[in-house]
Amino acid sequence: MKNIVVIGGGTGTYIVLTGLKEYPVNLSAIVAMSDSGGSTGILRDELGVLPPGDIRRALVALSQSPQIIRDLFNYRFENGGLGGHSFGNLFLTALEKITGDFEKAVEEAGKILSIRGQIIPVTKDSVHLHAVLENGEEVAGETNIDIPKHDGKLKIKKVFLRPRARATKGALKAIEKADLIVIGPGDLYTSLIPNLLVKGISSAIIKSRAKLVYVCGLMTKYGETYGFKADDFAKTVESYLGKRRIDYIVVNNTVAPKKILARYSKEKKEIVPLPLKNIKRHYKVIQADVASTKQYFRHDSHKLAKVLIMLTEFENVLSFLETEKS
Amino acid sequence: MKNIVVIGGGTGTYIVLTGLKEYPVNLSAIVAMSDSGGSTGILRDELGVLPPGDIRRALVALSQSPQIIRDLFNYRFENGGLGGHSFGNLFLTALEKITGDFEKAVEEAGKILSIRGQIIPVTKDSVHLHAVLENGEEVAGETNIDIPKHDGKLKIKKVFLRPRARATKGALKAIEKADLIVIGPGDLYTSLIPNLLVKGISSAIIKSRAKLVYVCGLMTKYGETYGFKADDFAKTVESYLGKRRIDYIVVNNTVAPKKILARYSKEKKEIVPLPLKNIKRHYKVIQADVASTKQYFRHDSHKLAKVLIMLTEFENVLSFLETEKS
Repeated sequence: MKNIVVIGGGTGTYIVLTGLKEYPVNLSAIVAMSDSGGSTGILRDELGVLPPGDIRRALVALSQSPQIIRDLFNYRFENGGLGGHSFGNLFLTALEKITGDFEKAVEEAGKILSIRGQIIPVTKDSVHLHAVLENGEEVAGETNIDIPKHDGKLKIKKVFLRPRARATKGALKAIEKADLIVIGPGDLYTSLIPNLLVKGISSAIIKSRAKLVYVCGLMTKYGETYGFKADDFAKTVESYLGKRRIDYIVVNNTVAPKKILARYSKEKKEIVPLPLKNIKRHYKVIQADVASTKQYFRHDSHKLAKVLIMLTEFENVLSFLETEKS
Repeated sequence: MKNIVVIGGGTGTYIVLTGLKEYPVNLSAIVAMSDSGGSTGILRDELGVLPPGDIRRALVALSQSPQIIRDLFNYRFENGGLGGHSFGNLFLTALEKITGDFEKAVEEAGKILSIRGQIIPVTKDSVHLHAVLENGEEVAGETNIDIPKHDGKLKIKKVFLRPRARATKGALKAIEKADLIVIGPGDLYTSLIPNLLVKGISSAIIKSRAKLVYVCGLMTKYGETYGFKADDFAKTVESYLGKRRIDYIVVNNTVAPKKILARYSKEKKEIVPLPLKNIKRHYKVIQADVASTKQYFRHDSHKLAKVLIMLTEFENVLSFLETEKS
């Protein structure tokens, strides 16, 4: 079986894992650990634990337990002192307290949820994400970067973790064994790059013989990637990867209904345009129908997984087809 | 297999279930639903759920999951908005919210914890325990009865539930099928009798062909059963049972080390004396070594279970032995 490693955090990772777990592959998810908002942020502050939110989502994605268990993990308390906390976060927090080790806690939670594959926190160091904007201003904390107080058209100059973080052994081992490494989908600066900032990750990717795929977001994000095109996304990822270049980028070509787009325009989110043709790139662009347009405009688990599986299984065929086309 | 029904709540029920689950019997636990203190009380107040605490203890007792899962269920958060909450209580609360039905929530939790036997809330009505003292004063809420503000020598005249509560179908069915019904061990007024106050329970016990055993507490409790002897405990239970009489009472005869007793004397707890001989009783008194004196003076799971199993399996032998002795 091929070894696929997904690198990310957040909803995008949930989506891609949900799709990939249906295929006979060895699946590992490396999850960012710099979330600082909502229930996760409160647990970090009050109980000094590592951020459980993104790990919880990945666990639910890979869980083969009955629906009720998955619902339970996503359940959010509504009132009182518990108000806003997601049950799954409390689950991971209690397990971390009992085991004294977040990686062990995630492993145990994986057993309880009967997950397919493995979920690996990228680091066990308690870190926060910082961003430096074009105007030199520094923003501390993932939530503050996510919900900008600045003019959202300002670009992010760079992001870094504070203090520095070392990669977990599990993450390095998974990358070493990988046949395919998938970065994304997910928020560029707050879900994907925080993984690459962890010491050891980019050098492991550089050493790896795996094919490297970046799944480009469907829309730009005001305050982070305003005005970005697919190549801007890909180049930004590469700038944090050092010497390693991306092999493929997956770009959606499904057209979203205007009705849905109108909703997103309030958040100043814009569709990432299709990459221009006849431009020389060192990576291959795979344009495909990988989005769902039912209620939200987001990646579709099954469509996206199909493209990624095709990449592991039929890479040669694909190259041939691409050559034929051009 | 014989059907054993344990009626109670609290630590005593935890102990007896832990012992009984090792034997090849069909085990059901009917658990009181009038707890109002601590984490349970807060969850009742803030989230409007049924009291999870006693159910949680019973679930852990019957769980066949690895130790870490059992530890998780008993884990108590220490700081912040979650401070004082037991994880297992939050688990049951979230499941109740998702399923919309506490009985269903308990059933699902039982599956997750791989329990042997079944745990049944005595009622699904939200009720509180009230007590009327000798001096006519009424005390509302289980916690207030447990931790009395009055002179602890005052006896309780009667207890009742408000509003009235109807038994769950599960509880009635378990009693109907029972070969042995075990009331106790546990706090007389706050863990055991609250079950008998639920409409349907005592009449089901009256109709049942099961042998009825009362496991007498080891110590009296200041504010509830001060000065009680074993027969006082048994008669009080019977006064809430209507026409049905107890068949056996199990009384401990292990002597507790003075060092341990000194600790309890601060709480004004006293050893229940051995029943006087040569008194005519309609129930049989089984005096046995059923206590542990290791760290606390409390019932010993395995010793107590052995006596109860003997009652289901060798009742005739026992009667014979008793006759021989007297």
